[in-house]
Amino acid sequence: MTLIQVINPNTSLAMTETIGAAARAVAAPGTEIIAVSPSQGVPSIEGHFDEAIAAIGVLEQVRRGKAQGVSGHVIACFGDPGLLAARELASGPVIGIAEAAMHAATLVATRFSIVTTLPRTLIIARHLLQQYGFTHHCAALHAIDLPVLALEDGSGLAQEKVRQQCLQAKQQDGSGAIVLGCGGMATLARELTHELGMPVIDGVSAAVKMVEALVALGLGTSKHGDLDWPIAKPLSGAFQHLN
Amino acid sequence: MTLIQVINPNTSLAMTETIGAAARAVAAPGTEIIAVSPSQGVPSIEGHFDEAIAAIGVLEQVRRGKAQGVSGHVIACFGDPGLLAARELASGPVIGIAEAAMHAATLVATRFSIVTTLPRTLIIARHLLQQYGFTHHCAALHAIDLPVLALEDGSGLAQEKVRQQCLQAKQQDGSGAIVLGCGGMATLARELTHELGMPVIDGVSAAVKMVEALVALGLGTSKHGDLDWPIAKPLSGAFQHLN
Amino acid sequence: MTLIQVINPNTSLAMTETIGAAARAVAAPGTEIIAVSPSQGVPSIEGHFDEAIAAIGVLEQVRRGKAQGVSGHVIACFGDPGLLAARELASGPVIGIAEAAMHAATLVATRFSIVTTLPRTLIIARHLLQQYGFTHHCAALHAIDLPVLALEDGSGLAQEKVRQQCLQAKQQDGSGAIVLGCGGMATLARELTHELGMPVIDGVSAAVKMVEALVALGLGTSKHGDLDWPIAKPLSGAFQHLN
Amino acid sequence: MTLIQVINPNTSLAMTETIGAAARAVAAPGTEIIAVSPSQGVPSIEGHFDEAIAAIGVLEQVRRGKAQGVSGHVIACFGDPGLLAARELASGPVIGIAEAAMHAATLVATRFSIVTTLPRTLIIARHLLQQYGFTHHCAALHAIDLPVLALEDGSGLAQEKVRQQCLQAKQQDGSGAIVLGCGGMATLARELTHELGMPVIDGVSAAVKMVEALVALGLGTSKHGDLDWPIAKPLSGAFQHLN
Amino acid sequence: MTLIQVINPNTSLAMTETIGAAARAVAAPGTEIIAVSPSQGVPSIEGHFDEAIAAIGVLEQVRRGKAQGVSGHVIACFGDPGLLAARELASGPVIGIAEAAMHAATLVATRFSIVTTLPRTLIIARHLLQQYGFTHHCAALHAIDLPVLALEDGSGLAQEKVRQQCLQAKQQDGSGAIVLGCGGMATLARELTHELGMPVIDGVSAAVKMVEALVALGLGTSKHGDLDWPIAKPLSGAFQHLN
Amino acid sequence: MTLIQVINPNTSLAMTETIGAAARAVAAPGTEIIAVSPSQGVPSIEGHFDEAIAAIGVLEQVRRGKAQGVSGHVIACFGDPGLLAARELASGPVIGIAEAAMHAATLVATRFSIVTTLPRTLIIARHLLQQYGFTHHCAALHAIDLPVLALEDGSGLAQEKVRQQCLQAKQQDGSGAIVLGCGGMATLARELTHELGMPVIDGVSAAVKMVEALVALGLGTSKHGDLDWPIAKPLSGAFQHLN
Repeated sequence: MTLIQVINPNTSLAMTETIGAAARAVAAPGTEIIAVSPSQGVPSIEGHFDEAIAAIGVLEQVRRGKAQGVSGHVIACFGDPGLLAARELASGPVIGIAEAAMHAATLVATRFSIVTTLPRTLIIARHLLQQYGFTHHCAALHAIDLPVLALEDGSGLAQEKVRQQCLQAKQQDGSGAIVLGCGGMATLARELTHELGMPVIDGVSAAVKMVEALVALGLGTSKHGDLDWPIAKPLSGAFQHLN
Repeated sequence: MTLIQVINPNTSLAMTETIGAAARAVAAPGTEIIAVSPSQGVPSIEGHFDEAIAAIGVLEQVRRGKAQGVSGHVIACFGDPGLLAARELASGPVIGIAEAAMHAATLVATRFSIVTTLPRTLIIARHLLQQYGFTHHCAALHAIDLPVLALEDGSGLAQEKVRQQCLQAKQQDGSGAIVLGCGGMATLARELTHELGMPVIDGVSAAVKMVEALVALGLGTSKHGDLDWPIAKPLSGAFQHLN
Repeated sequence: MTLIQVINPNTSLAMTETIGAAARAVAAPGTEIIAVSPSQGVPSIEGHFDEAIAAIGVLEQVRRGKAQGVSGHVIACFGDPGLLAARELASGPVIGIAEAAMHAATLVATRFSIVTTLPRTLIIARHLLQQYGFTHHCAALHAIDLPVLALEDGSGLAQEKVRQQCLQAKQQDGSGAIVLGCGGMATLARELTHELGMPVIDGVSAAVKMVEALVALGLGTSKHGDLDWPIAKPLSGAFQHLN
Repeated sequence: MTLIQVINPNTSLAMTETIGAAARAVAAPGTEIIAVSPSQGVPSIEGHFDEAIAAIGVLEQVRRGKAQGVSGHVIACFGDPGLLAARELASGPVIGIAEAAMHAATLVATRFSIVTTLPRTLIIARHLLQQYGFTHHCAALHAIDLPVLALEDGSGLAQEKVRQQCLQAKQQDGSGAIVLGCGGMATLARELTHELGMPVIDGVSAAVKMVEALVALGLGTSKHGDLDWPIAKPLSGAFQHLN
Repeated sequence: MTLIQVINPNTSLAMTETIGAAARAVAAPGTEIIAVSPSQGVPSIEGHFDEAIAAIGVLEQVRRGKAQGVSGHVIACFGDPGLLAARELASGPVIGIAEAAMHAATLVATRFSIVTTLPRTLIIARHLLQQYGFTHHCAALHAIDLPVLALEDGSGLAQEKVRQQCLQAKQQDGSGAIVLGCGGMATLARELTHELGMPVIDGVSAAVKMVEALVALGLGTSKHGDLDWPIAKPLSGAFQHLN
Repeated sequence: MTLIQVINPNTSLAMTETIGAAARAVAAPGTEIIAVSPSQGVPSIEGHFDEAIAAIGVLEQVRRGKAQGVSGHVIACFGDPGLLAARELASGPVIGIAEAAMHAATLVATRFSIVTTLPRTLIIARHLLQQYGFTHHCAALHAIDLPVLALEDGSGLAQEKVRQQCLQAKQQDGSGAIVLGCGGMATLARELTHELGMPVIDGVSAAVKMVEALVALGLGTSKHGDLDWPIAKPLSGAFQHLN
């Protein structure tokens, strides 16, 4: 049995469920998904400030996941908050959903487009493209200009805007795949892939499969060098529980 | 049942067996590995000339694999010969072992080293790093200065040189993972990972798991845009069988 | 009167004093320095995990600084933890000491070297070089292989190692300036500049002068676009005080 | 007498004639052009699959050219198929027409535009820009959306589309030169240069002059390092003639 | 008393006054601005030829400034003509206004736009972005298509075009700050910052504050390495006065 | 008859002769070389200050060359001083010797080394590599640590140091070609190419052949866009003769 912890870094339980369902839909027979979210933090993540707070929640959860014996971790927010910090804490692999979706996109297309929520989050995607090495693989970035939680309001408006933006990207960008830029869009990927006739990639499911792959390969986060365990030191105040 | 075709682009059957074994060792329960090599071509691949010839063999095999109904393809030579051409031919995913190993390395370490065979092949690795976006993720490239087939001569000399070079890379490069730069080194990864206490990554097994992952995600090579099927045209002479 | 808040992101009061003194030593006549550190967090910052925790402390302090009416903020840890998040919170300028030192170095030399504490923090410096655009301006990165707090142990050993490393960098790197890679090295810069006969740059003092400069220019953090105020949303648990 | 072999990598004899004529039009008095094409392969090259096949034809011809004592070789397809492999085989210089045109463009303008045939080939041009170092020198890439052989259909439609696209590029791109992205456009360059009042560059003629230049300088392909002769090994099947 | 020499590299005295006024408007209490321009050269700088001539005037003035005991120098033309040459001549800091404005922009926004005069000068800005490391921080470059001296014709037309272009950049570029690309636009920055509600940055004032900052830090141009004093050698003819 | 003006940007007549001889040695039958140097300026060029002065001499000579009806111009100093300014002045091609040598090197090898005179000039070479796009094609830069004029002192010491450095580069750099980084080394290239068994490239001869090539192609400097003629304006003082 492989336990994979899928961490929704925000506190919205509806989104945790969406994400957990997307993860379970692709999990291998021997994989069990534990979908979690922090008990405290931000209800949605739409900027660097939100990300900084969410990163603490991610670390808390990684620590708990280790105690539960999980084999690997997914950070299910498109900004991959706390990714390298979580890797220091973890022995198994830790994969961000932006990272997973971008990697997958480069394996099935020469260039990809990104469709995300608010314009202000585009800079986060740009920085991740640079960090992961994919700046030149990204043909264009788009934002539907609706907040993250619009994806959970039940109206379907945000989903329709995502769809329209994907159609437009297909026509204009000259790219071969589309990366969905929010954990809350996870459930849209299969359908849009079918409708558009091109890969539309959700990072949650991609990250789950990458964690499974790395675990099967016997590859965890390297403990040689700069991702080694955090140096033991007394954490004070609200951070004591991370000791 | 998921059929994955693992293509050794050279004609050395011993290496095809090594590669096939490495692939089967990590294949998921529902995956069957078909390890093949071209009937004609080069016995080993150690430069651009060899790669150009090997690419034809890869295309032949991809075509045959499709006829057999395989779900995805692995190109098991560290130069990833014919990768984009094969993607045009394929509907499922096609993954090169350099590509797979480099991607995997960036998921478990901030920077990686490469250990390969002959110095003259380093330029091929450099070009792939650039194409895949990982130039800045590679801390150093090393060559053991032995030809590819030395890995199959039974003496163990090449294997020992790989080991020594890995140990040295660990000491000097400041990287967190090592990528083995030849399909013929596939069987060394697990043992060296254990001995060195850091991820030593074989691309054959990594590529198999990535193909499995993409297949499970319902993601094949994009047929929208520049990886679309080759435009139908009459191929003449020795290439007619690729029609 | 210009109030500049200098935030030591770790909880070591001795280091806060070192940093505060370095800041005051260069402050203009009309500038008052408020040197602070978080009440809770990590005693030193030597990796991504430490940085994630420290970022929260930085945000707390920025919020307090705004309430006090400060004109700008300095983040006095060489990893610039929480920089973009802090910029969302702030109306005045926010400058990290790595950022300030790197910028200053490119203004007085064509290429610079970095001398920092532990090797594991080099990756943080590398990522900042990439984010700020200075990858090609950095000739070499060095670590003295002592923890941050060794700079506060009174023995002078760490200081001597910094000096030796700077001398070696001068001989070998072909660079024209040296950037000191830790807030705790702030007091060494002037003396080493004199001894080496080349600019040795401390980020704390550099950041103070850059904040002063931006304030005098009437330039604060842009509130148009992706550094706009954080979107108002209920923060829960230990983060409520950041509302 | 300097013999220069101009290789049309596709099997269309009409295009071989176009290319040969363009080469002869600029050849120096002491230069003789041998325009050849493979006896087997693809009638036009419009993707990676076509290129992989064409590369074998290029290698065959380079081998024959060497036997004939030619001083240098031109690969007259805008994707420069088989370039590095051909360099391994050759002692004289080997120049691709994309390479030649891009180099020439950077010598007469700060930035250039590319006008090519099918949109799916743009990715090949992008990869060459990256390989040659000219990504930042290319202001824009355009495709007329007609296949390569439309240039040989006698209607003049493709030629008119090239002209229109060049005029548009002049108005919009902010570039100082235009690179024609297909060997079949070779004859258009002089006229368009005159009509547009800016350099419109054909790679066939540019490559011939570069080979002449390198030959006169006594510079052939380096046999020190990674472009050294292919390592001798038994080639089997359809590739035996390349031994 | 800190003397800062602000060099208008062209010979237009009206522009020297504009620039001097902008410099004095931000100078610290203890700073005295000496605004100068060459006695011979070009009346405005709108290309590489103009810049080459202007660079000599800059060097003359730097030499005079040193004789006057100035603490630092500003090169007040957006192409930063003669910057590295001037640094060889100077012991204090030398800052170009493009450099200063671009640095400042990256400190208050994640990406910036540039608004300059003639389209032909955009290439100069592009090269500076590359040299300073800010290519990826620049979202867009715009030209109002009026010559530099239109800013001094008293009609206000050029100023209005700058304003319109800034408004358009705010709407379209997705950037957080605007850099004004000409010394003659210095007086517009404060007002446009106010009107647009985002930082609009003038390099003259930014450079003055950066020189003040570096002087206060005790940092001058590095004389270790490649910015060392020019090697003494006999200068002949019109250049003798630079000896 | 094709007249090519080869401009030695420094005032050392011995070097002008060396350069002229190197140019004539490769000139085509129909080419006449006019080797010139400025009447006033610097006797050698070893830094940015020297380059700024030399650029004026280059512009003077280009202007004179145009009056003489030359077809193209070579700037025969490895820093390519005044290159873009000269292109504005010229209608024919203008090629710098660093540019020519670097371009040629990338046509015969995958990576090259540079061997130049003083270490302080290395930064100039680095900036040119970046401007021309060849940063990743340069494996290493070396300086013999002797001034330019040591190449003209008749002792042969500098020449021997160049030779030793080339031999060492061949052993250590993993590059396939060597670029000689000074016009005064022009005569060494052929001999060293022979001795080392790898291309050792002189920029003077390479530039002559590239000018010949561009002239034969009917390609001059683009007058569309940013290399258009300098905007006419009154030049004053010592620059009046450039009007």
